[in-house]
Amino acid sequence: MVGGGQLARMTQQAAIALGIGFEVLAAGPLESAAQVVRQAVIGDHDDLDDLRRFAQRCDVITFDHEHVPTAFLRTLRDEGVVVRPAPEALENAQDKLVMRSTLTAAGIPGPLWSQVASADDVVAFAASAGWPVVLKTARGGYDGKGVTLVDDAAHAQRVLDAAAPGTRWLAEQKVPFVRELAVQVARSPHGQAAVYPVVQTTQIDGICREVIAPAPIDDDVALAAQDIALHVAQTLEVTGMLAVEMFQTAEGVLVNELAMRPHNSGHWSIDGAVTSQFEQHLRAVLDLPLGSTAALAPYTVMANVLGGDHPDMYKAYLHCMAHDPGLRIHMYGKDVRPGRKVGHVTVVGDDLEDLLERARHGAAYLTGDITE
Amino acid sequence: MVGGGQLARMTQQAAIALGIGFEVLAAGPLESAAQVVRQAVIGDHDDLDDLRRFAQRCDVITFDHEHVPTAFLRTLRDEGVVVRPAPEALENAQDKLVMRSTLTAAGIPGPLWSQVASADDVVAFAASAGWPVVLKTARGGYDGKGVTLVDDAAHAQRVLDAAAPGTRWLAEQKVPFVRELAVQVARSPHGQAAVYPVVQTTQIDGICREVIAPAPIDDDVALAAQDIALHVAQTLEVTGMLAVEMFQTAEGVLVNELAMRPHNSGHWSIDGAVTSQFEQHLRAVLDLPLGSTAALAPYTVMANVLGGDHPDMYKAYLHCMAHDPGLRIHMYGKDVRPGRKVGHVTVVGDDLEDLLERARHGAAYLTGDITE
Repeated sequence: MVGGGQLARMTQQAAIALGIGFEVLAAGPLESAAQVVRQAVIGDHDDLDDLRRFAQRCDVITFDHEHVPTAFLRTLRDEGVVVRPAPEALENAQDKLVMRSTLTAAGIPGPLWSQVASADDVVAFAASAGWPVVLKTARGGYDGKGVTLVDDAAHAQRVLDAAAPGTRWLAEQKVPFVRELAVQVARSPHGQAAVYPVVQTTQIDGICREVIAPAPIDDDVALAAQDIALHVAQTLEVTGMLAVEMFQTAEGVLVNELAMRPHNSGHWSIDGAVTSQFEQHLRAVLDLPLGSTAALAPYTVMANVLGGDHPDMYKAYLHCMAHDPGLRIHMYGKDVRPGRKVGHVTVVGDDLEDLLERARHGAAYLTGDITE
Repeated sequence: MVGGGQLARMTQQAAIALGIGFEVLAAGPLESAAQVVRQAVIGDHDDLDDLRRFAQRCDVITFDHEHVPTAFLRTLRDEGVVVRPAPEALENAQDKLVMRSTLTAAGIPGPLWSQVASADDVVAFAASAGWPVVLKTARGGYDGKGVTLVDDAAHAQRVLDAAAPGTRWLAEQKVPFVRELAVQVARSPHGQAAVYPVVQTTQIDGICREVIAPAPIDDDVALAAQDIALHVAQTLEVTGMLAVEMFQTAEGVLVNELAMRPHNSGHWSIDGAVTSQFEQHLRAVLDLPLGSTAALAPYTVMANVLGGDHPDMYKAYLHCMAHDPGLRIHMYGKDVRPGRKVGHVTVVGDDLEDLLERARHGAAYLTGDITE
């Protein structure tokens, strides 16, 4: 797995169970995943030679982020490296213009969108989609970065002017959503697919904060969302995990973003599903039969733990364990910085209100937002 | 954790989630656990200098087996190393004469037993306990080794004669049990204890093959078994996990064997309980608050995967995944040798008969006992 973050770290837990040799390419020996594998390869995912050196150790290479240049991946593939997902698929997770074009061509529902290059283009788009407009860079955005809600032409101009030359942009309709949903799908090279229960995600400042599995929605909405996610996986010929973030609107479900890897909205599956998304990703990229995506309990709630003002979380950690013996705590081995995702907590059970309260308390306490 | 076997390997999975730095002392770099930690310390658990070198890296040392000489552990403790469980507790898991004496003195129910040194002693014991007699070496026995069922004086003489000089022996009544049970208990240094549901274990040739959680027994028997296990943990001042193997008889429950570490009879907890025995062991030895021991489903069945005649298990592994997407597969990264524990499988659900069939099929297929 290229990348040494928490996704690779949690994939190692799954690799241990499956008895699969698991290597990571990390930027340094203290990265989240590098702490927990036998010998991380230290290198740069932007350097072809580092990628080549890493790939020589592996039967298959896959990714814990979307930042590897696809040109390098094509080169590696030409040299005989097995790359999953393939660069053609991955491009849809790297470039929102590619993604929107492909999904629109396939008839997959999404918000109104248009490529834009000037404030005039944004104004023209707003004439049909209305203000405010969601202005996005085609590349490089995640956790709310690269996304701005603009109110008028002058605002759009300021955003466009502040970006690096050559930045490509798209404008999207601001969707009046009822709630945000996400669907995890696994797809293997020979085409087996498995879809997880639809989850509800809550974002604050563009960062996923809380996930409810399954989402409290009608069965027909859930089926429609799963159907769309499977359609996306097949259309893009994804291999591995695909996370499809969606908006639920009064008229139906629209695709918002894609990630081709285990994703924050699927962390609930470690404690709440028969097969975690991390194990499923390994099964899929290795072309092993996929595991059951069934939930273990009526509800699972996951809440992210963000770094707070206190670098030492030990007392909070003790408190949370003592306060709620059923709280599943996942820490990523990362130094605490305010707002940085440093872990997550999960609770599993029958009573959604109770689970929400427990997960929120655990996350808020670990972050330091509350002290009692 | 001293020891590089599968127990340390599975403890690493729990350490990753808790964000705990986890080190192992392994005999070699390819041992089961050494494959999955950042930098295993290679050394001998029978060598004080190796233990000392390892302990310098750790805040607490604990064990994945019972073979470390307690004299060395006392020395390390005198030098300031925190050893959990303490050598005085661990001695009861190393030496069956110490264990039987301590438990009998505490009034904890067990089979009739007596220290023996000659065939005459065995005959005298059989006069009250009846033939056959279970003849055990005080030390060194596990997975059925060091245990012989002897039918008469001549048989006892042959067994005693075959052993190394200085071997210490005990004779135990052959208990007419209804079934074998096991209870996992965690106990932390400040005295918090948590007990898991009682499980039924099935041994074949002295090796644990199958575990049903919870055991299909009456509540009063389960409560009695849990009460005994808690009493043992408190009496021996165990820190960490304690596995108490028991016989259920028509008259009640008797203690058979002890292990002071995560134990094969507790592997079900990885997939079937809120907190696995591996996480619980870490919490206990680090004096963290203990986690919930609640089961996630009405039943969990675990079956061991023993090595069979085929060193390459890959096709069987594929088959099992395709045949049963709900089968949880745990492989230990060990070379296959006939009869060696190389993994286990677990299934979780409502229907015990169905779970038994699935777990047995998975284990038998991986072993190579069946091919369809």
